[in-house]
Amino acid sequence: MSGAANFRSCGSVLVTGAGRGLGLQIVQTLASGGFAPGRIIATARDPGAAETLQELAKKHPNVHIVPLDVVSQESIEQCAEEVGRLVGEDGLNCLINNAGINLVADFHSVTAEKMMENFHTNAVAPLMITKAFLPLLKRAASRGGAMGIRRAAVVNMTSLLGSVELNWGERANNFKWYPYRTSKSALNMVSRCMAVDLEPDGILCMAIHPGWVRTDMGGSEAPLSPEESISSVLSVIGGLTEKDHGSFLNFTGEQLPW
Amino acid sequence: MSGAANFRSCGSVLVTGAGRGLGLQIVQTLASGGFAPGRIIATARDPGAAETLQELAKKHPNVHIVPLDVVSQESIEQCAEEVGRLVGEDGLNCLINNAGINLVADFHSVTAEKMMENFHTNAVAPLMITKAFLPLLKRAASRGGAMGIRRAAVVNMTSLLGSVELNWGERANNFKWYPYRTSKSALNMVSRCMAVDLEPDGILCMAIHPGWVRTDMGGSEAPLSPEESISSVLSVIGGLTEKDHGSFLNFTGEQLPW
Ligand SMILES: NC(=O)c1ccc[n+]([C@@H]2O[C@H](COP(=O)([O-])OP(=O)(O)OC[C@H]3O[C@@H](n4cnc5c(N)ncnc54)[C@H](OP(=O)(O)O)[C@@H]3O)[C@@H](O)[C@H]2O)c1
Ligand SMILES: NC(=O)c1ccc[n+]([C@@H]2O[C@H](COP(=O)([O-])OP(=O)(O)OC[C@H]3O[C@@H](n4cnc5c(N)ncnc54)[C@H](OP(=O)(O)O)[C@@H]3O)[C@@H](O)[C@H]2O)c1
Repeated sequence: MSGAANFRSCGSVLVTGAGRGLGLQIVQTLASGGFAPGRIIATARDPGAAETLQELAKKHPNVHIVPLDVVSQESIEQCAEEVGRLVGEDGLNCLINNAGINLVADFHSVTAEKMMENFHTNAVAPLMITKAFLPLLKRAASRGGAMGIRRAAVVNMTSLLGSVELNWGERANNFKWYPYRTSKSALNMVSRCMAVDLEPDGILCMAIHPGWVRTDMGGSEAPLSPEESISSVLSVIGGLTEKDHGSFLNFTGEQLPW
Repeated sequence: MSGAANFRSCGSVLVTGAGRGLGLQIVQTLASGGFAPGRIIATARDPGAAETLQELAKKHPNVHIVPLDVVSQESIEQCAEEVGRLVGEDGLNCLINNAGINLVADFHSVTAEKMMENFHTNAVAPLMITKAFLPLLKRAASRGGAMGIRRAAVVNMTSLLGSVELNWGERANNFKWYPYRTSKSALNMVSRCMAVDLEPDGILCMAIHPGWVRTDMGGSEAPLSPEESISSVLSVIGGLTEKDHGSFLNFTGEQLPW
């Protein structure tokens, strides 16, 4: 739980796609860690269907469930309003853009529609969500302090498969997923662009690879359990400082090549 | 004209977006260079409006104009059929994905729609076009020989602004164009994925940055004329070998970081 410990001085964390998979695990680990942030805002596109999340919220009064479909601008704006009322003058300290999809398609089966849909969810949505939450992030950042999650940070859940450099040789012969790989490379650029633009407000922005994890997306062959991945991911996020601004980190904390 | 000279043993070259700008310059330089490839297939979404291109085709019988709107699957398929009839058993040696747009938008003005549209034209279209022309590229490649444009190659016109690595420090404070930068990073990943998939057929694939050039897109402040840029670009393309497969090169021939 050393990861979650770093969140003790963080006022509020928002996670997208928190109904299952890594998003749910983030909420679970944060809520039950003993060093939970003041508010854990768990968003899901269909909260009614997210039973485990509902139970968590019943048990932990600091877990707030807010509906958010990341590809709907209307939903993004409604969510930002509701979160604004929840956090009030404190603003939002940490936004984790976690929701994502993998429309598996190789060179032969890929279509323009699959490319566009995966790009929308994985790369465009984190940008539109960050724009909508900027006033709340700025409010938190305006209280000053060193860059990091105690002040204000945007964390984008990316993938090693988004590294253009690493998509070569042995590695490239697995996972020939055009829509997914392309969307995550695009997310890495969005992340880097946002880092440049959020810096003057003191808001940290970076991208993290959670490892290959046993979720619906990762499948049962993956080496990491959600608990293992997220304990490590939260430890990295909790320890982010100025030097990590604009970076692409592995869940183990090492830098990854673009 | 040393660049164009490398094209003398290349049977056919297809260029997208050849009605103006760099695409038109490629056709012009190739057609008038004295070492022109057997067939120069100049595609444009509205050939009727491309007067200079029409004149070039009148003067040079090896210039063939074929309509192609790169974001229309129907148009892509019709173009591939027509080009198939043109090149016959020889196949297509060199496909240059040059057409591109820049929907200028910064963090505050960017919308999901602008992101999607720029991504479609700049990253998805080159993929869908390469898929449609694969049988013709394979036909050319099946004749054997070393990797390069005499055999078969796909060249994607990318941009330095698509480099995530270089989008930092001084450089990042200019050109805060979210839709364009993101689309070109995505194109770089598409290019690298295709390099992996086209390799078994002996088809070379790479991405090139043409420099900052005085076209409608580049504007009048740009340091390079279209002639200067394209003479250098064609020299690099003409000299491509196996070692450049999967690369991201500057118009000067140097490697660029992803
Ligand atoms: N698992 C891995 O090995 C792995 C590796 C590298 C990166 N990642 C990244 O980590 C993140 C989480 O992955 P995961 O393994 O937890 O995937 P997952 O098990 O498939 O869960 C995906 C989550 O994203 C949500 N989501 C998808 N589209 C959404 C939308 N339009 N609006 C709101 N929520 C939406 C899903 O909600 P619904 O329940 O409503 O569908 C679900 O909560 C993703 O960004 C993924 O790319 C995962
Ligand atoms: N100029 C620079 O400084 C620079 C720098 C780096 C990279 N590049 C890249 O180089 C390439 C050419 O740029 P440029 O400077 O020549 O740009 P440009 O002057 O704006 O010309 C763009 C070309 O793309 C075509 N095009 C756009 N959308 C199309 C579509 N849907 N179907 C078919 N054709 C389409 C245009 O055709 P229409 O006439 O029908 O619109 C035009 O021929 C682009 O990929 C650009 O990103 C340019």
